[in-house]
Amino acid sequence: MQRRRLNEAERDAALAGLPHWRLQGEVLRRELVFRDFREAFALMTRVAALAETLHHHPDWHNAYNRLVIELTTHDLGALSPLDVELARRIEALLEG
Amino acid sequence: MQRRRLNEAERDAALAGLPHWRLQGEVLRRELVFRDFREAFALMTRVAALAETLHHHPDWHNAYNRLVIELTTHDLGALSPLDVELARRIEALLEG
Repeated sequence: MQRRRLNEAERDAALAGLPHWRLQGEVLRRELVFRDFREAFALMTRVAALAETLHHHPDWHNAYNRLVIELTTHDLGALSPLDVELARRIEALLEG
Repeated sequence: MQRRRLNEAERDAALAGLPHWRLQGEVLRRELVFRDFREAFALMTRVAALAETLHHHPDWHNAYNRLVIELTTHDLGALSPLDVELARRIEALLEG
């Protein structure tokens, strides 16, 4: 997976496939509400394993049953294919 | 553990015993830097178990090897003995 800035067409295509994610500048953002902390942290544990696999990690904030995930590629200061891949895999976890 | 507002003396005593924590309004805050994400998330996993035990949960933000933990008792809008207990137990994990 390349660490390079997405072009406009790639960005549009990625967003079209990620309806629960919002683009805020160069950050892809997803807000989630779970039943309780246990459920929120269970998802976080699975995302942590994904992040280690991809060598790409989320910025995230959790408060009880709420989780905000923000993805960007810090060394580029931009969205890269890695962010899109991590977002897609998180969605797959949520749907699975 | 009571859900009640700490009085001034209790608050001062708690802070004296928690030198790595800062009081910001009614929030007890600790910033941590780990070697990498794996180490940060390992600590988070242990804190998550503590939080479930105490039925009291942190607000926290993680970005790679950085973790910010904020403790407050939301239903009081104030610090309570629960926040101090959770902070102490987190310190014990970090020292252990």
